[in-house]
Amino acid sequence: MKREVDVAIIGAGSGGLSARREVEKKTKNYVVIDGGTLGTTCARVGCMPSKVLIQVAEDFYRRNKHLEEGIHGGDKLTVNTKEVMAHVRKLRDRFVRGVLGGMNSWGQEHFIDEYAKFVDANTLKTKSFEITAKKIILASGSSPAIPDIFKGYESFLITTDSFFELEDLPKSMAVIGLGVIGMELGQAVSRLGVNTIGIGRRKNVCGITDPKLNDYATQKFSELLNLSFAGVEKVEQKKNQLAITTDGKTHYVDKVLVTSGRGAQWQNLNIEALGYDLNNKIIPEFDSETRALTKYPHIFIAGDNSGEKQILHEASDEGRVAGYNAVNEVKAFRPRTPLMVTFSDPNIACSGASYKELTDKGIDFEIGEVSFEGQGRSIVKLKEIGMLRVYGDKKSKRILGSELMAPDGEHLAHLLSWVISQEMNVNEVLNLPFYHPVIEEGLRTALRDLRDKIGGNEDWPLEIKMRL
Amino acid sequence: MKREVDVAIIGAGSGGLSARREVEKKTKNYVVIDGGTLGTTCARVGCMPSKVLIQVAEDFYRRNKHLEEGIHGGDKLTVNTKEVMAHVRKLRDRFVRGVLGGMNSWGQEHFIDEYAKFVDANTLKTKSFEITAKKIILASGSSPAIPDIFKGYESFLITTDSFFELEDLPKSMAVIGLGVIGMELGQAVSRLGVNTIGIGRRKNVCGITDPKLNDYATQKFSELLNLSFAGVEKVEQKKNQLAITTDGKTHYVDKVLVTSGRGAQWQNLNIEALGYDLNNKIIPEFDSETRALTKYPHIFIAGDNSGEKQILHEASDEGRVAGYNAVNEVKAFRPRTPLMVTFSDPNIACSGASYKELTDKGIDFEIGEVSFEGQGRSIVKLKEIGMLRVYGDKKSKRILGSELMAPDGEHLAHLLSWVISQEMNVNEVLNLPFYHPVIEEGLRTALRDLRDKIGGNEDWPLEIKMRL
Repeated sequence: MKREVDVAIIGAGSGGLSARREVEKKTKNYVVIDGGTLGTTCARVGCMPSKVLIQVAEDFYRRNKHLEEGIHGGDKLTVNTKEVMAHVRKLRDRFVRGVLGGMNSWGQEHFIDEYAKFVDANTLKTKSFEITAKKIILASGSSPAIPDIFKGYESFLITTDSFFELEDLPKSMAVIGLGVIGMELGQAVSRLGVNTIGIGRRKNVCGITDPKLNDYATQKFSELLNLSFAGVEKVEQKKNQLAITTDGKTHYVDKVLVTSGRGAQWQNLNIEALGYDLNNKIIPEFDSETRALTKYPHIFIAGDNSGEKQILHEASDEGRVAGYNAVNEVKAFRPRTPLMVTFSDPNIACSGASYKELTDKGIDFEIGEVSFEGQGRSIVKLKEIGMLRVYGDKKSKRILGSELMAPDGEHLAHLLSWVISQEMNVNEVLNLPFYHPVIEEGLRTALRDLRDKIGGNEDWPLEIKMRL
Repeated sequence: MKREVDVAIIGAGSGGLSARREVEKKTKNYVVIDGGTLGTTCARVGCMPSKVLIQVAEDFYRRNKHLEEGIHGGDKLTVNTKEVMAHVRKLRDRFVRGVLGGMNSWGQEHFIDEYAKFVDANTLKTKSFEITAKKIILASGSSPAIPDIFKGYESFLITTDSFFELEDLPKSMAVIGLGVIGMELGQAVSRLGVNTIGIGRRKNVCGITDPKLNDYATQKFSELLNLSFAGVEKVEQKKNQLAITTDGKTHYVDKVLVTSGRGAQWQNLNIEALGYDLNNKIIPEFDSETRALTKYPHIFIAGDNSGEKQILHEASDEGRVAGYNAVNEVKAFRPRTPLMVTFSDPNIACSGASYKELTDKGIDFEIGEVSFEGQGRSIVKLKEIGMLRVYGDKKSKRILGSELMAPDGEHLAHLLSWVISQEMNVNEVLNLPFYHPVIEEGLRTALRDLRDKIGGNEDWPLEIKMRL
């Protein structure tokens, strides 16, 4: 059957759904095409279920502080991991229902649950339809990548696509990759009693780029769970287990959770029909501020398949820009200040420019630092682990970026990314209210350290605005 | 013995210690006079030990969520309240040691551990000294006030001065006053198993001024612990207990925690020598931005005894301004944006202008609102209680203030007070990054609600800055 539409959106994930909301404001003649499982990567297999698992793991782990606080019986607490997984799925289903409920309201004519292939730059083919579209939005998402060394051992492998479907957690598990997902899930399952070995290919966790923070964080996380930074040296099947050798030691595990990257989903789209060669995993060139492909300005790209950072709020932004530009005069939109959080315990986060970015650009910056060991509220919480590093421009005294490992770090990262967005200098930030006793006072200590290093401002002798 | 100093500081609490730091930058000829217990109200009997108690109470209370998460044995957890109090004191002592350690470094000549009385506006008398001072800083603090109805029942009364010294918590307790301290400690002891009745004089908790939020919060807190809003109608001793009647019902309690206000400490200072009459509890008139007394511009006032809000970071600010102005040309300093937090669960907080302040001033404002029931991360945390109201100016679209009850509300309150400090409008705030899934997304929902009510800005169709 043939259909002619103003806009065809490939992918009903976070990018595609955000795009649809903008498209729908201008035209009812659009279609969203997705032959896969609905509900978004975020709600089904990403942000949401992982946070539920982490919450349970943290609640269970807290028993280790009970005795110090005068609470008894914590050593008798047990966790039923089948029930944990059922709880995770119960809440996940609530989040997915929310997404699907939103989709129900559009009307059936706007959705095709089949896969799309390009015929040419304005024509898509699905099993039942041939769709001619004035504008096309590509939001086909990403999927977990499997390293070659594990080819042939598929029955042992878990990815985030299958992890949350597990009836029960395995007794032992290797987690491959110590990025955001690996550290979040690795720490959580370790706390829930899974004999876990986390394996990265270099001494780094959660994409930290600040060398001092990375030294601290790799050390601290190594004390909290088994980590190896030597990569996977050898894989062999031994009866019902995989024998994985890393750093010269062999670990026998029931399952392997692969979190070593997500690849943009371009396969099966027949993107080659547009003259692109994806063999080398090259993403078609596009303008990140309009989302338009350079070669085909009527095609826009949004979400994980753009190969940029796979972060929900950025995927949504990209979707909105793509959707807006598909039905309006094309405009460029400035990306928000970067903000990236790993929901490990303590949180890892980066706000604004990373250490590496500043160094690569040759920017003359100074670093303010605080340790959360001995920080007031961290003492109260019995969570004295953490270090925050904040980067300030030596001349303008502006806050440029920060990397941190801290209790409640997710909140500090918001504050930091907000003042960076506002292009505030360190004196201006120190004039803001900090309550007592809060984790934010740790941030203030780091800001004072930065201020002392780059020189204060005589107009602000007390960190309070003078009435001039 | 006679001494002549540049600056005499009365009170070695948070206000006086902050003042001293500024004074010391300009003169070594100063003295701090305090005949009371050292270590600050904050560290000894205020902010810090209360946060420790709250932390234990929350950790113990969390067992109520365990079964839902697949954690077993939570119903067998017990709390040893003697050990809890010992833990509270252990951490309190660490905080107090920090304060005292700081004092040791000044040198003995700078401290007199006696009480001071005014002889005249430049002369103070202590037990051993007569001190002539060019400048005087008054930072004598506050102490708990006891309502008349409890006079004669002193053996049953606890204040924050004695609470943290309790060897054990009583079996039953009435908490008088549902302000910040009453709600924090009342909820904590209730969660730790004390049969608690919290009694306020009107249907209000934590000083909330927003009527809708107050209705919600009083309702929700009433579900979490026993509260009466009818005041204390009758008090009688019945054997070893006090019989307290409120709302027509009589409660038999072992102890009464009085948190119905703190009075500025002016007694024994012989302030009458300066011609002030304090009989009517009138605080000497002063300029809040210079801290100087109107009648005696060489005398400055800082901290709780100024009769303003009793908030640590404000007391510190006042101390710094008083100290600075005692040794420099007198300058006016603009107070920071208001920020007030009750560390109840959920937190209650007010940032910027309160509802009452805006209404009293006749400001034309609109309200954005969010419920945390059904909010993503609140679902994950199993903490679906809360409501946030944010006030925006109808014309400028600027954020003016907010009152909230929310999980992690302390962090939201910081974000809000910071954007209010920056005089940002709602469009600008919506352009800031909000990660996913975070409690901050609840704040965003309220901001979107506000934006939709006061009208968005065509330049910001996607909440993202256009490249113009």
